[in-house]
Formats: sequence, C-alpha cells, structure tokens
Amino acid sequence: MAILLNNDGRRHPDWKRALRVHLPEREVIEYPIIPDVKAIDYAIVWNHPKGDLRRYPNLKAVLSTGSGTEHFDRDTNLPNVPIVRLIDMAMADDMALYTLYWILHFQRQFETYRQQQSLQKWKRHPSPITSDYNICLLGLGAIGAIIAQKIANNGFKISGWSRSQKNLNGVTCLSGEEALPEALGMADIIVNCLPINTSTTGFLDYVKLSQMKAGAAIINISRGQIIEDDALLSFLDSGHISAAALDVFDQEPLPPGSPFWSHPKVHVTPHMSGATNPDTAAKIISQSILTLERGEAPNYLYQKQLSKR
Amino acid sequence: MAILLNNDGRRHPDWKRALRVHLPEREVIEYPIIPDVKAIDYAIVWNHPKGDLRRYPNLKAVLSTGSGTEHFDRDTNLPNVPIVRLIDMAMADDMALYTLYWILHFQRQFETYRQQQSLQKWKRHPSPITSDYNICLLGLGAIGAIIAQKIANNGFKISGWSRSQKNLNGVTCLSGEEALPEALGMADIIVNCLPINTSTTGFLDYVKLSQMKAGAAIINISRGQIIEDDALLSFLDSGHISAAALDVFDQEPLPPGSPFWSHPKVHVTPHMSGATNPDTAAKIISQSILTLERGEAPNYLYQKQLSKR
Repeated sequence: MAILLNNDGRRHPDWKRALRVHLPEREVIEYPIIPDVKAIDYAIVWNHPKGDLRRYPNLKAVLSTGSGTEHFDRDTNLPNVPIVRLIDMAMADDMALYTLYWILHFQRQFETYRQQQSLQKWKRHPSPITSDYNICLLGLGAIGAIIAQKIANNGFKISGWSRSQKNLNGVTCLSGEEALPEALGMADIIVNCLPINTSTTGFLDYVKLSQMKAGAAIINISRGQIIEDDALLSFLDSGHISAAALDVFDQEPLPPGSPFWSHPKVHVTPHMSGATNPDTAAKIISQSILTLERGEAPNYLYQKQLSKR
Repeated sequence: MAILLNNDGRRHPDWKRALRVHLPEREVIEYPIIPDVKAIDYAIVWNHPKGDLRRYPNLKAVLSTGSGTEHFDRDTNLPNVPIVRLIDMAMADDMALYTLYWILHFQRQFETYRQQQSLQKWKRHPSPITSDYNICLLGLGAIGAIIAQKIANNGFKISGWSRSQKNLNGVTCLSGEEALPEALGMADIIVNCLPINTSTTGFLDYVKLSQMKAGAAIINISRGQIIEDDALLSFLDSGHISAAALDVFDQEPLPPGSPFWSHPKVHVTPHMSGATNPDTAAKIISQSILTLERGEAPNYLYQKQLSKR
C-alpha cells in the first residue's frame, strides 16, 4: 500500500525523505500524480483540494501535517475515516519560546533599550516583577496548554481562557463568554492561541479589544483572521494597546503596503513561531499510523465543528 | 543598635523604607552622616570607601546589597567580621530570563526578521533545534547555577565551565583551564557569568575568544572587565563572533562614542539584567541578620580571593 503526500500542493523532498525513514514499508506518492488511487491507504495532507480525499476508495485515515484544521473545516466532502491532527511537542515548545521571547521583549522594555542604544543613552527602567506580570492565553487546546505551562514554569502569572472549562496545573483557567471580559481585562499580555473556525473568525473585534487592560500588549501565534485588523490598528494608534507581535495574518505572505509592516508598535514575523520539522512530524505520523493499524484511536482526532477551543 | 546603609554613597529612600519594614527594631543610618559610630552593629553596603568599615567598633557583620564582591576585594582594610553576599533568587531569575531573551534572539534570528520587516520582506529561515543549541555558561557560582538550570529547563543543551568542578542536574559541567578550549569551542552561545577578580580581569582575551566556535554569539551579564573590548570588537568585525549582547561594561555608564553603542552586531543594555529589588533584598538581608544573631553562619559568606568561581 502507499501513502499520499499532499502538503499544500508543493513538492517536499524533506517530507518525502522523512516519511521514507519512518514508514519504510510504504511507497510515498506525491500529489497530484497518483498512478493508482486504489493503492492509497493513508493520506498526509495540508490544504488539500476540497473533495479530493474522497477519490481514494481504500483510504483508512487522513493525517494532517499541522495542528490547524481549517482545511478540513472548509471541505464539506470529507471521507468517513479518522482524521488526525499533528500535535508536535517540539513545535509547541518552539511556539512557547517564541511567545516567551515577546513577553520578555515587552516586560523588560527591550524596545526602549534598543532606541536608547541608537541615541547612546544609558538609562534603566523599572520592569514589572515576573510573578506579577499577567499573561492570558486565549485558547487552551493541545498547543495552548503546552505554551501556558512553559510560561508558568518561567515564573509568570498565567491565566487562560477557553470556551469549555480546562484544568491546568499552575494556570488560572477561565471559561465561557461571560468570563472573557475578566480574562481580557486583567492581562498585561494577551496571547491568541484560539483555533480558527466559524465562531473565532473576527473574534477579537473592537468590543473585545476594548476590554483589554489599557497599555497591554498582544501576541498572535494562531491565525490572523481571529483578530480584526482595523480594530487592532485603531487601538495601537490610540495607545490602548501598547504593542503587538504578529506571526500570523489574514493574508500570508503579508502583502506589501500592509500597515502592519511599517507600524512602529507592531513586530511582524513570517509565520515562523512553530515551524513543522518534517523529521519529528513524520515520526509522530508513523506512530499514529501504527496505532490505527492496531485498530486503536490515535490522539488528537479531528471532530468537525466540535470542541474547537 | 543601628544599621549603617551605604549603597554606593547615594540616598536610597526605597532601601531605607524596605529595611524599616523588615528590620523594624533597628534605626537605619545613611552614610555619610553617622551620629554615633559605636551604635552601628550591621553595615549594609555597596562600593563603600576603603577602610570605612573599620570605623565601627561594635560592627557584627557586613551585608552586601549585591552578589558581586569587587568592593570587598579592593579594600585591604576590612574588619574581621562575617561579610555576606546578597544572592537574591528573584534577581538571579531576572538574569536568567535576560539571558534567555538573547539566546532566543540569536537562535530564532529575530534580528533578521526585524530587518526584513523594515524591507517588507516575508521569508522564513530555519533555526537550530533547541535541544541541539549549545549554550555554555562561564562561571557556575550561585547565580550562574540558577541561570544554567533555567536555560536547561527551557530545553536548550547546556554546559558550564568553572574553575573548580561543579555538579548540576542537566548541565554538562567542565572545569579547569585545560577544559576551557573545549567549553568555548562547542558552544553556539557563550554566557559570561564569571565573578570579577584579579584572575578573571581580561580573562576573555584574544586567545580565548579565538577558541569560540566560528559564528557563535556572546552574552555578558557579569562584569565588563572580564572581556577584552578590543579583542571582542575585532572578532565581531571579522565575523568570527556573530553578535554580542552586553549588559556590563568596563566603564559604566558606557561613555558616549564607545564603539559598542553603534556596532551593528552589538546589543547594549544599561546593566539591567538583574536589578536588585530593595524589598526582596531587604527581606533576605534581615533573614541573614537573624541567622547571625542566633550565632549561625548565613549562606554566601564572602571569603577573600577564595572560591571565586
């Protein structure tokens, strides 16, 4: 039997190589040239064309190359097989360290010190005490939980908000719409880890951003569509939001001329907070396939429009 | 009895207030106006004038407001009483997070992304895997050990070098002059945590910096005098050292016109990596005084020119 690889429609020699290492007994067929659709028993995909996964009559499961699920959400013609999200702890750790970098950047005023250096100015500024510095994660799914834990381990005061109630060691967990103003209002930094779906698109709008503590900063590592760009820009201009570190955008690559590129309070990075490592990812995917072959259910099964936060 | 406060010869209302909170039974006398030298039983000092501590006939102990010991090293006329260094875990944690910030800055190429933003350029760059990224701390004293642990806890590959052999959980500990080329040669980032004394002044000279791995970066959080400025600048210019984050300098404040201010590969911060918090510090000092009053020895006793690393 063979594996279909369709990682965003592009060639990925590194992925192909990694899958051969971890799944040596299977041929890897790269989309779109598929000699025999009946030979495909597993499909490893990201951004597959809608309906494509129905073409393989012997498909046993679909495995995503990422943790996001939007490519499944928008496909109304999915096969009736298990769909497995990729939750790579190494990637989650990278995202946590990315988040930590910007938390420290804001807390310790490294932007001010950079400006002072250009002016040859030597002046210390007091910083908030780490254990009093309140970081609130929106979204406590598999990735958000790992990030929350890592930030907590570094001594910050950490809270998290999710649609349904979670329980995480060392993290103040809030849940439900009614708790959101409190979560937004007490944080020095809001970190958006929400998954994208119909209920989170445009979720952080003018009203919700206005509920943030005056002078707080925001970090977006999830999806650009969750924050309303115009509302964010307006609050950055007014000073209500002091700074933003944005790794994700409504349109990627971020188009030339976007106001985010040149805004003095915005830090743009090119969706690099948690790059998928084909080698660690292929290993996890191979383990999920082994689990499926044993007739068991792997972790992180995708369920359409259920438990999305 | 009364406490002498001489924190660098300046007035410190915040220190005075904090000491009154934690040592309510003692009067706090601020240098240089001392109504009665016989009333002083404890001296809390930083950068005291040489020989001054001999003036108090009833002095029971000296307590430093910092972890450094250079103000004691250069005083050849110290009283024969215990001298206690201040090792504030909150300060050490701050220094660890400062170090972590620059480690992430270099590992994840945030400088490149900042430059790309100014050019409106969207391009990802691969980063070294955290568990393969080798951080070497020079100096594994009380502060260095805490920093090493925190960096290890965040998933980095961590080694440390000290004059005498140490044993720290999760840290590859090297020791002695003969192990130094190996320690310097394997690290992607060298973090200087050595204490300043006669044997560490100018320690990181041209020869030792040449032993660093090509393209490695350096972070200095200890004392400027330990790194030879000219050698560092020469290796930054040649590219052998890729970048430097410097919090400490031979002369502080760093004088206008210093090449460090304007060097494109140098990040200057104004000795802020671990600011002393008078409140937590006064609490630790008051606990040391209570320990001394019970006739016991507090932690972190200063011993002249002994066990300096």
